[in-house]
Amino acid sequence: MAIYFIGLGLYDERDITLKGLETVRKCDVVFAEFYTSLLAGTTINRIEELIGKSIHRLNREDVELNFEKNVLNEAKSKDVAFLTVGDPMVATTHSDLRIRAKKAGIKSYIIHAPSIYSAIAITGLHIYKFGKSTTVAYPEKNWFPTSHYDVIRENLERGLHTMLFLDIKAEQNRYMTANEAMEILLQIEEMKGDGVFTPDTLVVVLARAGSLNPTLRAGYVKDMMNENFGRQPHVMVVPGKLHIVEAEYLVEFAGAPEEILEKT
Amino acid sequence: MAIYFIGLGLYDERDITLKGLETVRKCDVVFAEFYTSLLAGTTINRIEELIGKSIHRLNREDVELNFEKNVLNEAKSKDVAFLTVGDPMVATTHSDLRIRAKKAGIKSYIIHAPSIYSAIAITGLHIYKFGKSTTVAYPEKNWFPTSHYDVIRENLERGLHTMLFLDIKAEQNRYMTANEAMEILLQIEEMKGDGVFTPDTLVVVLARAGSLNPTLRAGYVKDMMNENFGRQPHVMVVPGKLHIVEAEYLVEFAGAPEEILEKT
Repeated sequence: MAIYFIGLGLYDERDITLKGLETVRKCDVVFAEFYTSLLAGTTINRIEELIGKSIHRLNREDVELNFEKNVLNEAKSKDVAFLTVGDPMVATTHSDLRIRAKKAGIKSYIIHAPSIYSAIAITGLHIYKFGKSTTVAYPEKNWFPTSHYDVIRENLERGLHTMLFLDIKAEQNRYMTANEAMEILLQIEEMKGDGVFTPDTLVVVLARAGSLNPTLRAGYVKDMMNENFGRQPHVMVVPGKLHIVEAEYLVEFAGAPEEILEKT
Repeated sequence: MAIYFIGLGLYDERDITLKGLETVRKCDVVFAEFYTSLLAGTTINRIEELIGKSIHRLNREDVELNFEKNVLNEAKSKDVAFLTVGDPMVATTHSDLRIRAKKAGIKSYIIHAPSIYSAIAITGLHIYKFGKSTTVAYPEKNWFPTSHYDVIRENLERGLHTMLFLDIKAEQNRYMTANEAMEILLQIEEMKGDGVFTPDTLVVVLARAGSLNPTLRAGYVKDMMNENFGRQPHVMVVPGKLHIVEAEYLVEFAGAPEEILEKT
């Protein structure tokens, strides 16, 4: 039979497409993973009610180590849905799963859904001007990752915006806030000193993308650090060179200081 | 009242989200524009049947010059839906419309939908490694735009992938094919000679993203130029440095030559 990778979208159970919903309702078995992203506005129960089937929730180990046993075995004789937050292939690990399905002789289909990669345009920042994106990781005991700082620098050198994903440790129920990300980046700034992320850097924070009333704020790090953006998920952008319309949008919809209009 | 910018997604009328569908069904007036993108797998009639309302289709002039008169006037006393292909704020012109709505005292909401910015991950290329994106424009009589060539070069210098949107002239019913884009880029290569886009460049073509059976092909320009990718819309990627899993995916799902596995 086949495996259908179906996106759930960004925020609640109503962010799936009609195509996605119709397809998952026709499938015989439904799996889902929630460790690469957070669907904050709903519960598994509400998704189950909507699709009319029970969901087998898989953790990272179930997926990455035991995909063949857990999922592909079922797909040999049944139509299987694999639900993911956002758009299915955006988590790079899922493209590997699709290869593993093919090698097991199982056909797969992708059903797209809203993703932060396009929803970020709600910041008013022009989407074609985003450079490479990166993730701000939690520092570990013996490991302080800093590559995201370098990505911001490289993008800024070309005038490009940088989308910063914030670390997720689903098994510990830890979802990084924009405030934590700012602190981490300021620490790296102290270590590296390239002037890439300072208290005077303009940042844009988007919280709970996909809800009808997401929080959108723009301002300098020194002012934003102590703001409360509400519940996660948060995503943060370090803008590059702003076009006048981008600056105007940030002033109108994100409370950015009006002086940014003069810097465009 | 309010204006709801609602995405229709990528391919047919079933690519809208449940949230989008419920919202448009509640609106009093429905506008749509189809000049920034192409919804190839459906018709306006089928969308109208689904939403149970008639759609006022707007062309570029109606939107960009007469948005106040055509749309905002209605939104003063009614709930208005403004439908767009893909995710609503991705076309930069729409963020300007939202500013104009605010200045007219009208509240606006965004309802996201699948977009090519995330759906491109169906190529297996890791999405965080995409650099700035750009559009291949049709050359005009006295104007041969070449900036997209420079964007590819800058991304390649950093090992990044480049997503190339292909020009749309909706009023002439012209939607650029990947084949046309390859010809244009080879002409620019002849002019500039930087070795950025040659017959030996690996390219990835995705046609009809959002359908259950999109066409996905990868190969060298010299071989891809004469391939038939089927109906538009087409989008093309010039990959940067490939990770082994990206290369494997392109071989398995896009018919890429196996020798690319050795170059990762």
